[in-house]
Amino acid sequence: MFDPVEKLKEFIRHPSVSADPKFHAGMKGAQEFVAELLGSLGFTVEVVKSDLHPIIFAQRGGEAHWPHVVIYGHYDVQPADPLNLWQTPAFEPTIRGNRIYGRGAADNKGPLITNIAAIAQLLEEDPRLPLRITFLIEGEEEMGSPSFPKFLEHYQDRIRAADFVFLSDTALPTPDQVVLTCGLRGLALFDLVVTGPKGDLHSGLHGGVLLNPIQALAEIIATLHTADGKVNVPGFYDDVLDVHPWEREQLKKLGSDEKAYREFLGIDRFYTTPGYSPFEAVRFQPTLEFNGIGGGYQGDGTKTVIPSKAFAKISCRLVPNQKPVKIKQLVMDTIRARAPQGVKIDFVDQHQGEAYVVVPPGRSNTPKDQSPVLARAFQAAEQAVTEVWGRPPLYLREGGSVPIIADIKRVTGLDSVMFGLFLPEDNLHAPNESFNLDVMKKGTETTRRMFAALARDSV
Amino acid sequence: MFDPVEKLKEFIRHPSVSADPKFHAGMKGAQEFVAELLGSLGFTVEVVKSDLHPIIFAQRGGEAHWPHVVIYGHYDVQPADPLNLWQTPAFEPTIRGNRIYGRGAADNKGPLITNIAAIAQLLEEDPRLPLRITFLIEGEEEMGSPSFPKFLEHYQDRIRAADFVFLSDTALPTPDQVVLTCGLRGLALFDLVVTGPKGDLHSGLHGGVLLNPIQALAEIIATLHTADGKVNVPGFYDDVLDVHPWEREQLKKLGSDEKAYREFLGIDRFYTTPGYSPFEAVRFQPTLEFNGIGGGYQGDGTKTVIPSKAFAKISCRLVPNQKPVKIKQLVMDTIRARAPQGVKIDFVDQHQGEAYVVVPPGRSNTPKDQSPVLARAFQAAEQAVTEVWGRPPLYLREGGSVPIIADIKRVTGLDSVMFGLFLPEDNLHAPNESFNLDVMKKGTETTRRMFAALARDSV
Repeated sequence: MFDPVEKLKEFIRHPSVSADPKFHAGMKGAQEFVAELLGSLGFTVEVVKSDLHPIIFAQRGGEAHWPHVVIYGHYDVQPADPLNLWQTPAFEPTIRGNRIYGRGAADNKGPLITNIAAIAQLLEEDPRLPLRITFLIEGEEEMGSPSFPKFLEHYQDRIRAADFVFLSDTALPTPDQVVLTCGLRGLALFDLVVTGPKGDLHSGLHGGVLLNPIQALAEIIATLHTADGKVNVPGFYDDVLDVHPWEREQLKKLGSDEKAYREFLGIDRFYTTPGYSPFEAVRFQPTLEFNGIGGGYQGDGTKTVIPSKAFAKISCRLVPNQKPVKIKQLVMDTIRARAPQGVKIDFVDQHQGEAYVVVPPGRSNTPKDQSPVLARAFQAAEQAVTEVWGRPPLYLREGGSVPIIADIKRVTGLDSVMFGLFLPEDNLHAPNESFNLDVMKKGTETTRRMFAALARDSV
Repeated sequence: MFDPVEKLKEFIRHPSVSADPKFHAGMKGAQEFVAELLGSLGFTVEVVKSDLHPIIFAQRGGEAHWPHVVIYGHYDVQPADPLNLWQTPAFEPTIRGNRIYGRGAADNKGPLITNIAAIAQLLEEDPRLPLRITFLIEGEEEMGSPSFPKFLEHYQDRIRAADFVFLSDTALPTPDQVVLTCGLRGLALFDLVVTGPKGDLHSGLHGGVLLNPIQALAEIIATLHTADGKVNVPGFYDDVLDVHPWEREQLKKLGSDEKAYREFLGIDRFYTTPGYSPFEAVRFQPTLEFNGIGGGYQGDGTKTVIPSKAFAKISCRLVPNQKPVKIKQLVMDTIRARAPQGVKIDFVDQHQGEAYVVVPPGRSNTPKDQSPVLARAFQAAEQAVTEVWGRPPLYLREGGSVPIIADIKRVTGLDSVMFGLFLPEDNLHAPNESFNLDVMKKGTETTRRMFAALARDSV
């Protein structure tokens, strides 16, 4: 018997932080764990080398008329720092109440194990299940999937042969309401580095003589938003896709308890693009955000230094049809134009990803040429969700980014059915990340029913 | 024979970073080194416990009509980070050319050994030297001397019995031109902490909904200066003492190669209070400076987080007659008034120190009641400098701060003769700090002559 919780514990114990070379052993452990797990279920597993962390390509073939799903997931996790804020060690899975705690529990190890558990059950019930399945499990998602596009180009023929992509790497807004995500924000990331004097200086001997790069950086950052919450970069909103009326209707059904959301965030007021509720803004509007800032002395006490450099880590979340390269250029040009004299401006390019949108069947803007298997997958998912959760799913765009979904669409033409399983309170990318075990159980059952229905179609 | 360079090497090898508890052994080593050194010269050494690092109180008594000098110095050093920017290890003294490299080489270990070497020579030449000497060597200068005022209160009677204070903890503008520093800037330091959401958040799931604390911090910082270089805090300049004409005359004699100074700093333009040259601004004008900034993810690559907190380390350099407590309050009140809504503002108070000014004899503003021994000390110093360096010293205020000089004046009434020995290129508080060995030699000889002349007077 496949015990999903035990498997998840084992998975979490591999500290698979892709961005930090110190975690090489954890990455290797997690990769081998997934490969062996899929191998034990009868999949033909290829471990495809990439520049950094291999991609697991596992296939279960079958007859040509069987539906063919590509299940996407990732075995890498975000860095766990600041470690001192974790109640229990980040890589020691711990169950408290109906939750399992650990880095990656919700992003993406728990949901991935949920998917695999559903497939394991189906194959146990019917080893001749008429469904072709390809798992694509990568190890660089938390770094922006730098190797994935190259992999896609190389394997595109084998992937294009599938009907659609399925993944659980998006959000569940509440434990009672499933969302089938039909849009993702894109990303454009870079660092801004401001250099003043050629070395750190004593603030007594030289203070009052030159522009401090921290001050210059702050002055630049302060220009990038208007007081009422818009990104203050000319052209930034030019390509933003309008929201369809049915999308606003779906969002209304979700409900919107602003007070509860404020309390969850621990803030006393929202700060959004004018005219958008926070629930709309996070789905339909782009952002320009500061993920980090640093410069000078940061320890306890004081060090009276004027630093040579200060930096900020900047990221834009993009919506369809904003283009990451264009937006980066707009923001960088604006920064250069507004930088005060007396400092040097440099950029360190980081990764990027396109926004994505898929329209479920039967909407005013559903493409005429939508694949019948994709349409059927949405219907099967809707039915399974309704049976298991007692109410139909909503179709909503989401604020997060899974850049490879747009890459897959671009390279292979395949669209994605996104069945989100992590809750807002799961603390993704933050200390004390956890995954709800009730959600895991219902998620497994939903996925099992959905794929069982799809397989039945093909008989 | 007392070998100053060997003694200095030994002194530097003790990593005496007062601000960091990890360096406890280095602090103890440096303290014992100084105590033993002064003991070996015949001083009666008391090691006075304080809350953190002991103060060395070493005395050489004598007859009541002998001049009595208090020599001040400190055995602690600044943190050495970032360590990777040092060409040779920070606590392994290394001689390259005519310089000795190491943390503390110039601030204050080299100058202190120079003073001690001069006294050692004088006592070797004449063991019955008619001069009373008290060394006060503290271990918390780089932390703002938190224990020193309490020590002063307790020992004030023994210190008040002296005639003046002598120290070498100020700057030498060029290797050819001595300055007897007659003013120091004060300090007012605090941290500003901006808190947004109660925990770090995923910038996809929640980005566009709330004010990022990094952005709020930057917006606050950006209001604190005008574009032309003034501190933009109401009342900040109210108590600034006017510059006396003789001070501007002295500064003119120093010369002012703006191009060379820009090149030394590695900047393409100055940024000063309007109407002040950089050489004037650093001596006669106050500052509001950012010594550090931090928040969110600062590592390589990216982490798409909205941080809960961001902070800046702020310091003001003050000039006579600005009061540190008043200035802190003005700046904090201004920050609170300008902080955007949606974030919480907190301050962490750090240390502070008053500005100081002493007027040498014979100036338009010399106090009528100036002590004759202080006046004689200035004259002896001027003569010794003229003999050894080939030109008379200048009398100038300096940009740095030695807060205890104002404390000593306040508690005991004693003024200070400040014979600066570190050069702008010595990289104080920065990587690759060094001390010029030629300056050390001439400094020793000058100090020897000055005290020999003072001692002769008393015979």
